[in-house]
Amino acid sequence: MEKAQVRFIPDDVTVEADKGQLLLDVALDGGIFIRAACGGAGACGQCKVRIVEGSVERLKDDKLDPQAKAVGYVLACQARVLGDITVEVPEAKLGRKVIPRDEAVRMRQTAQPMESPLVAEINPLAVRVLMEAAAPSPFDNVSDYERIVRTLKVSHEIEPVVASLDVIKQIPNNAREADWKLTAYMCVDDYPGIEKSVYRLCDVSRGHAQGPPTALAVDIGTTTLWGELINLDTGKVLARASRYNPQIAMGDDVISRIVYALKKDGLDRLQKEVVTGLNEIIDEVLLKSGQPRENIIFMIAAGNTVMTHLFLGLNPRYLRQSPYVPVAQHIQPVPAHTLGLNMPRHGFVRVMPGVASYVGGDIVSGVLANGMWDSDEMTLFIDIGTNGEIVVGNRDMLMTASCSAGPAFEGGGLEYGMRASPGAIEEILIDPETYEPMIKTMDTRPALGICGSGIINIISQMLKLRILGPNGKYRTDLGTDRVRGGRSGYEYVIARASDGGIGEDIVLTEVDLDNITRAKAAMFSGYTCLLSKIGVDVQALDRVIIAGAFGSFINLDHAVTIGLLPDLPRDKFRFIGNSSLLGARLAVLDKSLYQRAESVARSLTNVELSEDHSYMDNFMAALFFPHTRAELFPSVKLGS
Amino acid sequence: MEKAQVRFIPDDVTVEADKGQLLLDVALDGGIFIRAACGGAGACGQCKVRIVEGSVERLKDDKLDPQAKAVGYVLACQARVLGDITVEVPEAKLGRKVIPRDEAVRMRQTAQPMESPLVAEINPLAVRVLMEAAAPSPFDNVSDYERIVRTLKVSHEIEPVVASLDVIKQIPNNAREADWKLTAYMCVDDYPGIEKSVYRLCDVSRGHAQGPPTALAVDIGTTTLWGELINLDTGKVLARASRYNPQIAMGDDVISRIVYALKKDGLDRLQKEVVTGLNEIIDEVLLKSGQPRENIIFMIAAGNTVMTHLFLGLNPRYLRQSPYVPVAQHIQPVPAHTLGLNMPRHGFVRVMPGVASYVGGDIVSGVLANGMWDSDEMTLFIDIGTNGEIVVGNRDMLMTASCSAGPAFEGGGLEYGMRASPGAIEEILIDPETYEPMIKTMDTRPALGICGSGIINIISQMLKLRILGPNGKYRTDLGTDRVRGGRSGYEYVIARASDGGIGEDIVLTEVDLDNITRAKAAMFSGYTCLLSKIGVDVQALDRVIIAGAFGSFINLDHAVTIGLLPDLPRDKFRFIGNSSLLGARLAVLDKSLYQRAESVARSLTNVELSEDHSYMDNFMAALFFPHTRAELFPSVKLGS
Repeated sequence: MEKAQVRFIPDDVTVEADKGQLLLDVALDGGIFIRAACGGAGACGQCKVRIVEGSVERLKDDKLDPQAKAVGYVLACQARVLGDITVEVPEAKLGRKVIPRDEAVRMRQTAQPMESPLVAEINPLAVRVLMEAAAPSPFDNVSDYERIVRTLKVSHEIEPVVASLDVIKQIPNNAREADWKLTAYMCVDDYPGIEKSVYRLCDVSRGHAQGPPTALAVDIGTTTLWGELINLDTGKVLARASRYNPQIAMGDDVISRIVYALKKDGLDRLQKEVVTGLNEIIDEVLLKSGQPRENIIFMIAAGNTVMTHLFLGLNPRYLRQSPYVPVAQHIQPVPAHTLGLNMPRHGFVRVMPGVASYVGGDIVSGVLANGMWDSDEMTLFIDIGTNGEIVVGNRDMLMTASCSAGPAFEGGGLEYGMRASPGAIEEILIDPETYEPMIKTMDTRPALGICGSGIINIISQMLKLRILGPNGKYRTDLGTDRVRGGRSGYEYVIARASDGGIGEDIVLTEVDLDNITRAKAAMFSGYTCLLSKIGVDVQALDRVIIAGAFGSFINLDHAVTIGLLPDLPRDKFRFIGNSSLLGARLAVLDKSLYQRAESVARSLTNVELSEDHSYMDNFMAALFFPHTRAELFPSVKLGS
Repeated sequence: MEKAQVRFIPDDVTVEADKGQLLLDVALDGGIFIRAACGGAGACGQCKVRIVEGSVERLKDDKLDPQAKAVGYVLACQARVLGDITVEVPEAKLGRKVIPRDEAVRMRQTAQPMESPLVAEINPLAVRVLMEAAAPSPFDNVSDYERIVRTLKVSHEIEPVVASLDVIKQIPNNAREADWKLTAYMCVDDYPGIEKSVYRLCDVSRGHAQGPPTALAVDIGTTTLWGELINLDTGKVLARASRYNPQIAMGDDVISRIVYALKKDGLDRLQKEVVTGLNEIIDEVLLKSGQPRENIIFMIAAGNTVMTHLFLGLNPRYLRQSPYVPVAQHIQPVPAHTLGLNMPRHGFVRVMPGVASYVGGDIVSGVLANGMWDSDEMTLFIDIGTNGEIVVGNRDMLMTASCSAGPAFEGGGLEYGMRASPGAIEEILIDPETYEPMIKTMDTRPALGICGSGIINIISQMLKLRILGPNGKYRTDLGTDRVRGGRSGYEYVIARASDGGIGEDIVLTEVDLDNITRAKAAMFSGYTCLLSKIGVDVQALDRVIIAGAFGSFINLDHAVTIGLLPDLPRDKFRFIGNSSLLGARLAVLDKSLYQRAESVARSLTNVELSEDHSYMDNFMAALFFPHTRAELFPSVKLGS
């Protein structure tokens, strides 16, 4: 990416920007406060700045009068940096202090991406063989099926081969119509305690298939379905697609889905809905990649335990009743068509094995992907989702727990919370003197609400500017109408009705703050608890790996400031993105990694935190920003 | 059986009889000719004899006038021997010669039964386990399915266990309703080259099953279905049943069934028909034994290759087109319900593996049952059915062929031939002076036709009495109206219209004789051919084992006389009954015997006689009674 120097005057701060970056983003990077109330939508017209030197690309600027344009004014949210420029920020005359330079650099400091693990050799759970058998003759009239079996053994070193009657029935006609030039699809079955694989013939089709064999890696999220089509010859991802999980219509979270599943025909309906979503994903990746459906050999699906149960049609009833028992975790290959998936006849599905009711195949898949099972480094792996799953350990020992953190960091349960989708306020910079917020929304759409990363950012800044006390209560003596009494106690106005896209003020209430405090306390006490069980101090952690798309956006300083992440050197943090999907992809490419996922699932010690006495003590102590024991967060200075 | 001495005068021949035996049978045993035209039905009233000393039980005797009864006359076919008696045969005054005593003893000499092989230890292809798993608790909340798997491993030493989704789905409710007291049904899968068995969970049902686990051994004959219900705890046969194969309505023999199968929906219909018949057999053995259906764990079915294909719904098209290729021979367990069998959900079916299109699982099952695969004795095993399958060899080498003998020995293709069923003429004694036949029918019903053993007996006697020449042509200078010109050349009248049950004369024509000559020549040249291939002379055979119900009725001397069986000391012959059913039973009891059947099927060298040059030469030479080379049958004296 080409770089450009952007000098802001009168503060005389120079920020390095990417060419093409929006000026508003550059200001956020540099800690330069510019009024920006609509989130970057070009709607409020407040983020006026003047280009003193150099030039920018102007986007929508109908909020500017022609005279202003003529003398160099632009909207910061509607101007792209083309080269080195000098920008004058008009409001500087108000005497606003710039955020100190070293702190500003860290304003948007996120974790470094993890390097993706490598698959040394592609060796998938299913194989496709282009074969040619000798035609029967009077001197060689072995049966059709045994002829296939023999050819696979002699010419392809594949044995033993077994097949169901349905598959056998197809052979005689297919073989003769194709003159014994055939494509055999086999699922590779491995059984515990047996070294040799068994090849289960799934189909024998006419002629030789054209193009590479492909497979699907799928992540079945409670909210979102993700899918990838993978070329099994090269290991490359050919196409990617995502969809909301259509089950959302039957409930937002896993508990409401379970409740729905227990209604008459509920389970059946939920099963069909998720399959409908997956079929759309399959259609999309085929369309994008131009690959034929026939070439899809299998699918590996990772999901939490509830999602996996609903996908397979397993009754989730006992997942939510103590002692929280799944129906099954380690499941043999399932023929895809029996689930309603629009895959070829030979296609089958394997699900990533789970550990417990609230630690599912998605987490096992994540552990597979992050490689902590094969590392000496003492690692903390966190997935800040609805449940807040945590894994700690290394190759010697892995321990996991689900924190019941609740959906606050996904925007759930907050008055104006929302998912990270267009219109969500994701970045905020508060003017330290006026307490006015400068906001940036996703896709620079008019603000609809606030998402997880925005929440972390705003709380952290409010703590530092002492708008908010460590107890989660607002100061009311600041002389700003941004903090005011509301329906649920005091609240801070993030966006006014006039600047946003919902026709009312977007606020963060003390009740919201209470929810967030509980969520971060649940996470913090969860991993503290697990670490103490394996006798490792937080400071001794070698790495913290953050899962989820969230992980790439989260501002580490802000997350440490509110006490969500441990106060460690920032270079110990890594983000891994959708590790559930990544693990599924790895398992698609190498069956030994699928087997590794199975052994990870078996070896992961699951701790039921609700049954643990120290967890509640830890939780209570963490209901404070960043924590009642400030010494646990030495880098956090909340001003004086 | 208590014995009695029956003295016939005026010939003064004493025959040992079983108490309760019909007097007509005793006379047949002793070679005493008594006029008996209706076959023993008590209809013709010709078999009058007078009890001179001792007493008999009289059955139906309305054909006798009261005065005759008063002086001791009885109908030989309607009188049971109660103790030692003396019987006067009225017709003796005609000067008829008695058949020499030593020859008479051999008149009804049949082969000795084979001793059934023993199963040392019952170790079937499926297991039923009465199990009790610990209920889930907060300290042990492994999934339901893994809980079952773990209990089977820890408490029952069964592993690895796998299951399909359908089976897994049933577990949660069943386990909780039965408080984790369960019955697990597993199919034991073995794979080539893998020593350890895999246990495939077929069902987990509530509570502990009551009564012994049972299994079905089934023989799917072209004509008849046989089934046995076997107690898997004791190895005992609990009940037995048989039925005509309902497919008969779609054709008598395998070729016509194949033709039917190729019609629209034909295969489906044939499949349903045989399953209907088997379901009736299942109902009957359950009724007879008082066992619950739920206790049936699996079925092993043996049948010829066509029957096996039709039972499984495999297309038989290529079985009758050169090079005669089956769809499959070695087939994994098939869930019983998918075939339409009325067996429990956990029930599955295994079929006996076949060798070639015309050497099927019934023959492999027979070889398994007769033990020749484990014997040093050089053995000839023959099944004189429609196809006339032959196996020769011993533990070192086994060779097989199908002779295309045709159905003549089943009564097929003969003007008045019929199967061995009530009303079939099965025994015949021809008066050496008058050439009048004394006949006995099955179940002493009015004669309807002549069956295989009757045909062998009559031809042999006609050859000895020179009614018939070695070339299969009648002598016409005997001065009896029993031999006469008919529609198809000369014929011998076995039963007159007035004495039989069909309203017309029952005759044996020269065309019939030609069919029989070809059938016996096919068998003889078949085994001669196989023996020469392994370099063994007929005389070097240690044993001849005859399969089929037929085998227990066949008169060895007669069968040798016509050249069907080799001329060996009679103590080398054994009959084994329904060896196909017996082999299935053995395989039910011991899975290592099922595996043995699989290896027998693989090691049996199949010889296509139609492709063999020496076969046709041998066949031509055998179109003569007993053979053109009389030295091959030294014991056969056809008079001078």
